[in-house]
Amino acid sequence: MFERTNENKVLRDPVHGYIHISYQVIWDCLNTKEFQRLRRIHQLGGNYMVYHTAEHSRFSHSLGVYEIIRRMCEEVEDISSSLTEFEKIQVMCAGLIHDLGHGPFSHMFENILHKNHEEITQTLILDENTQIHQALKRAHKDLPSLCASILNHTHPNSMLSQMISSQLDADRMDYLLRDAYETGTSYGKFDLERILRTLRVSNGILCIKESGMHTIEDYIMARYHMYWQVYLHPDARSYEICIELFIKRYKEIRKSIKIEALEILFEPFNSDNFYLMDENRLFYGFQQALHCEDETLKDLANRILNRILLNWIELEEDSSLHFEKSTYCVIENCKDLNCLPYQEKENPIWILNTKNQCIPLSDCSEIVRALLRMDINHKKRVFYN
Amino acid sequence: MFERTNENKVLRDPVHGYIHISYQVIWDCLNTKEFQRLRRIHQLGGNYMVYHTAEHSRFSHSLGVYEIIRRMCEEVEDISSSLTEFEKIQVMCAGLIHDLGHGPFSHMFENILHKNHEEITQTLILDENTQIHQALKRAHKDLPSLCASILNHTHPNSMLSQMISSQLDADRMDYLLRDAYETGTSYGKFDLERILRTLRVSNGILCIKESGMHTIEDYIMARYHMYWQVYLHPDARSYEICIELFIKRYKEIRKSIKIEALEILFEPFNSDNFYLMDENRLFYGFQQALHCEDETLKDLANRILNRILLNWIELEEDSSLHFEKSTYCVIENCKDLNCLPYQEKENPIWILNTKNQCIPLSDCSEIVRALLRMDINHKKRVFYN
Amino acid sequence: MFERTNENKVLRDPVHGYIHISYQVIWDCLNTKEFQRLRRIHQLGGNYMVYHTAEHSRFSHSLGVYEIIRRMCEEVEDISSSLTEFEKIQVMCAGLIHDLGHGPFSHMFENILHKNHEEITQTLILDENTQIHQALKRAHKDLPSLCASILNHTHPNSMLSQMISSQLDADRMDYLLRDAYETGTSYGKFDLERILRTLRVSNGILCIKESGMHTIEDYIMARYHMYWQVYLHPDARSYEICIELFIKRYKEIRKSIKIEALEILFEPFNSDNFYLMDENRLFYGFQQALHCEDETLKDLANRILNRILLNWIELEEDSSLHFEKSTYCVIENCKDLNCLPYQEKENPIWILNTKNQCIPLSDCSEIVRALLRMDINHKKRVFYN
Amino acid sequence: MFERTNENKVLRDPVHGYIHISYQVIWDCLNTKEFQRLRRIHQLGGNYMVYHTAEHSRFSHSLGVYEIIRRMCEEVEDISSSLTEFEKIQVMCAGLIHDLGHGPFSHMFENILHKNHEEITQTLILDENTQIHQALKRAHKDLPSLCASILNHTHPNSMLSQMISSQLDADRMDYLLRDAYETGTSYGKFDLERILRTLRVSNGILCIKESGMHTIEDYIMARYHMYWQVYLHPDARSYEICIELFIKRYKEIRKSIKIEALEILFEPFNSDNFYLMDENRLFYGFQQALHCEDETLKDLANRILNRILLNWIELEEDSSLHFEKSTYCVIENCKDLNCLPYQEKENPIWILNTKNQCIPLSDCSEIVRALLRMDINHKKRVFYN
Repeated sequence: MFERTNENKVLRDPVHGYIHISYQVIWDCLNTKEFQRLRRIHQLGGNYMVYHTAEHSRFSHSLGVYEIIRRMCEEVEDISSSLTEFEKIQVMCAGLIHDLGHGPFSHMFENILHKNHEEITQTLILDENTQIHQALKRAHKDLPSLCASILNHTHPNSMLSQMISSQLDADRMDYLLRDAYETGTSYGKFDLERILRTLRVSNGILCIKESGMHTIEDYIMARYHMYWQVYLHPDARSYEICIELFIKRYKEIRKSIKIEALEILFEPFNSDNFYLMDENRLFYGFQQALHCEDETLKDLANRILNRILLNWIELEEDSSLHFEKSTYCVIENCKDLNCLPYQEKENPIWILNTKNQCIPLSDCSEIVRALLRMDINHKKRVFYN
Repeated sequence: MFERTNENKVLRDPVHGYIHISYQVIWDCLNTKEFQRLRRIHQLGGNYMVYHTAEHSRFSHSLGVYEIIRRMCEEVEDISSSLTEFEKIQVMCAGLIHDLGHGPFSHMFENILHKNHEEITQTLILDENTQIHQALKRAHKDLPSLCASILNHTHPNSMLSQMISSQLDADRMDYLLRDAYETGTSYGKFDLERILRTLRVSNGILCIKESGMHTIEDYIMARYHMYWQVYLHPDARSYEICIELFIKRYKEIRKSIKIEALEILFEPFNSDNFYLMDENRLFYGFQQALHCEDETLKDLANRILNRILLNWIELEEDSSLHFEKSTYCVIENCKDLNCLPYQEKENPIWILNTKNQCIPLSDCSEIVRALLRMDINHKKRVFYN
Repeated sequence: MFERTNENKVLRDPVHGYIHISYQVIWDCLNTKEFQRLRRIHQLGGNYMVYHTAEHSRFSHSLGVYEIIRRMCEEVEDISSSLTEFEKIQVMCAGLIHDLGHGPFSHMFENILHKNHEEITQTLILDENTQIHQALKRAHKDLPSLCASILNHTHPNSMLSQMISSQLDADRMDYLLRDAYETGTSYGKFDLERILRTLRVSNGILCIKESGMHTIEDYIMARYHMYWQVYLHPDARSYEICIELFIKRYKEIRKSIKIEALEILFEPFNSDNFYLMDENRLFYGFQQALHCEDETLKDLANRILNRILLNWIELEEDSSLHFEKSTYCVIENCKDLNCLPYQEKENPIWILNTKNQCIPLSDCSEIVRALLRMDINHKKRVFYN
Repeated sequence: MFERTNENKVLRDPVHGYIHISYQVIWDCLNTKEFQRLRRIHQLGGNYMVYHTAEHSRFSHSLGVYEIIRRMCEEVEDISSSLTEFEKIQVMCAGLIHDLGHGPFSHMFENILHKNHEEITQTLILDENTQIHQALKRAHKDLPSLCASILNHTHPNSMLSQMISSQLDADRMDYLLRDAYETGTSYGKFDLERILRTLRVSNGILCIKESGMHTIEDYIMARYHMYWQVYLHPDARSYEICIELFIKRYKEIRKSIKIEALEILFEPFNSDNFYLMDENRLFYGFQQALHCEDETLKDLANRILNRILLNWIELEEDSSLHFEKSTYCVIENCKDLNCLPYQEKENPIWILNTKNQCIPLSDCSEIVRALLRMDINHKKRVFYN
């Protein structure tokens, strides 16, 4: 039996009503400095430059993922009865901390600095010196490694990974609902209650009762629309590209010009360093750059701080245009971005049909079959000034 | 005729649906660096440490205030017909920029550094070197001074000030609705549509048709509840007190220990300095302090970054307790905080009765009369460790 | 152990998300003809003539009351642990069927025909020939009489009555939320989740933890506003007065003019008769009356079917006006209507303070104390043509 | 200039906030007995037997359609500037009254009695004796015939018909939003604000700016989901089939058994008769049938009044089953029901691309192209007892 908090704790949350916490280990994880740091990382990177109210952090989202997993464990009969209390603890912890490794403006961080957020999360969980490691270990000596194994898909019970990271997981479900709420768009909404009600376990695999299939179609369409309306919005990309260009430029010139706050980005990675890498530090670095001697860096800092975006244009794949007068010119195509709302190759959503067989979603949904056939977009976007 | 934007611009906003912009001067103000800076100041200071989703900025709120004023000017017949286009421009601009002078964690900023946000706003608007001054002046040479006079209540048409700052103004209406949305509480909601529909002008004074009186009662109760549930939440105060104690301590020891990012707080005020004072800088300062040599400063920085709150207790006015073992001990009573949801002395809400007379709200509302008689709270709160 | 349904049944409900049913006896009650009849009685009488979308029935409301009671029994720890399964069954059934005795346009029915809906509910439950009696008895032989005793406040465990009928009961909580939803007003909303979370049992009495007091204030203000904006809306009363005048007139002349559909109203009461008394029948009667020979009856039928309301005016208590030219003139003052949002004489809402004592709400809430002192309204309304 | 109401009238509506009325002719139409009759016809027929809160009437829906058209006329620049005031009056009136000809349980009414609701609407508008004809004529002598011509697609300005009846019209937009609100499902929601903002007129045809295409996809998916979750719900069909069987049976035996309330259904149609055909009358007829001598009719009346549904099963097209023991057996396939969310043959939704050309929606939307290719359902449903 795992230790309970002395009373049930509840945190007000506009997406879920309340976040419910009754295990001490969850409370302890939440109070580690690695988890509190997530308050200083925006959930949607630079998207709040387009949707001005999308100012929420990965802290809020992480609590939301935990809450959906908690409800799966407690309210979905099939899951509740097929997991041990220890497995439930593992998956709830893993859900809560799955995003610990996100740096400021994740794209920038991963693209430019070649650090992958999943690996960093692993490192933080397994490093004996981190508060998160200690909080987990206090509850059970194997909890750090078991949480890590859920997140890298090596846990013996693969269903635990499926709950956090698959085509229909607590992570996506929370971020769609939350991002829709925070941006004020209606696109991301779908019927979470009904998904939970139709969730089943069959041979150790999560699946959805056939009667819930239309709700899943709606969820996939919600994802599709959020991609086009929010996540891939060209102005948001334009802003993030400014940040990427800034860091690239600084990397080139840092031998001659030093911005103290940013040096940490180039030091060898360790957990202590990483704790300090948040968006506040980055923004302080941008402020410093306003007064530096490199004109490009100054210009980019000004663009970032005061939202002076790059222009952009959409081009057919084979067209070519010259941007010779531009200081900046970044070309990317949508395929560079992971933008398909649903893919079925390795990891389909499973539907439990009336004959009690698990079949891939596309076998029973015409809509989804159509989506899979779709050749989304061959266009390139050019960002320039 | 004031210049229009080449097409109507709309910004998605969860509270108002959309923010509508059709005047170039509004768009220009929005794109100044002084206005963009508001993205880096939380609307509710440290309240997001209690309500984890209350992560919104003064930028969003400022757009909301503008939008309510725009609707007053365009949709409320009495206002629309009694103001000139120029007056409408003035009051919309003034609403948009009324919060420019807020420093990071306003309480801290005003209490410790003795800088008042209204005065700073004035300075920024009137300083010829600021982008905001220039954006206003481009539209009309007197616009900066007229906006400033609305905000300091010296404008010849006092109704313009009333629209932004009174007991029933666009500022309060937006922040109640927005803070309720962002915290996920239901308390702050009231019927904005109906208030706009019952708003009237009588002898140059804004008033509410008698049939809207119950809606106003509801609005005042919303304010009352938001105070107790959100704005005065002891944990939020506890967090802000940590920040205040930090700054106080730094002030004492800065001759011997320097934290570069914070020095700007003690330099003589000017518009350029002020632009740099945002919460990112402050937080970078807290990070720096983690490694300094003053134990108190280190401890406070750790509390702030990792949400380790002070304890608190409520005491009767005459009781006395000793906190000799505490390093920190801060006592405050609710009267220190401006916590009455409605006061009537100078500036009542006016009700237009069926005989076409303006009477103070308390003359016709029993509920409000009762609220005014209420002796809210004599208790003190002690914050300690 | 009481029989369970073979799977949990859920009914979509916009107020509660879903209504959850897992006991067979609840399902059986729901499928009786006495319960299905409630679909043919509007929840808010003639109010849909003012708020055109308030077209919901007592059927929906009854399910909502059941759902709140179910949640109390299952989710409120103090209640869950202090009631037996049988007591839970009793109170859930009683909640579900508490409105069975409502006739069409309850006011009319009770005022003109002198039949009280609570008594009729008792009769229906206890009459061995009704389907509702049989459904209850199938689950337990004493269930009919125990349900009846909860509803008439004679059950040995008075808390069960308190859950359904008190100043803070499932009945009021559902109707405030539901009527707000259906009318589209924001006034009736309050924080049901938080009320459930702060509900406690102390010495067999339901009470609210002190930390929930502001939520209760909000609930009482919601009630206050719903009275003035919705329930006592003069146009809704005007409509119902037309119906009352119609029935009165028909009573006077029915010896000479017969409207078959209405005759049943004047037959001796029995359960079979009562089943047939619904609003469809009444409206068919109004249609018949359109072609009858009594001019008054014809006129009133026309008013009712085509929403031609009586005029109304508000008068000070001591003023007097003559309505000699009016065919109809009905005077009523607000005290005739049960319109106080909270009364404390017999049956206060109890607050459990931090010393674990139950005190009446007004002892700790200034707002409520003010409301109790309020002298709401001495005005009379005169309805005339 | 058309007469205005002496003040703007607003009706609270949960879907649109308020319904705004400022023309006297709209107010007059609303107060006719033909329009008030719509309060006595459920919007979704028997669907409230499945979704218990779907108790709303065609009255509410009609107001909603009017409101969307009013907003199109006043807020959509292209429409506002291309229509005369008289055309706006015509299309607003036509939208308001487009459903006047609906009988009780429209399916039943149209299937069994071979009366088409569109034709009846025409008759009522053109019949000089109806109040609706007179209300329209008071405003302009040609208004009745012009409204009628909009509704039967013979008006010289075809855009007016398109606004009320096309693949993207005010009728569908209101019913999707309203039915979603009233059932409590999330499926029917889409972004009405954005559709209005991207609506354009090109060569007298309504079209949508390309940037609004994703919103249209969302709207079509909303329709798709509402069909499967709500409109075609087999239990709702089961209920309506009971009503159809009842009327069929009564038609067969009415020579020997008379139910007075129902006789009107078989009289030659005229406007006065039709006014009396509402669901109240039908239900009174069912009550009467409870005591008649035909066992089948009694049984069906009992089923209808007390929600005792027929069973149903889904079959492959070519399978055959015998229902010899069943008294009732009704087979239908989905194609009998008009269930495609979007069809493009005659009347596509037009998208205005960036080259200012109008192209059919499916030319630019992959999702819609997929939907059009979809072979929805070959299954049959058998309803039996």
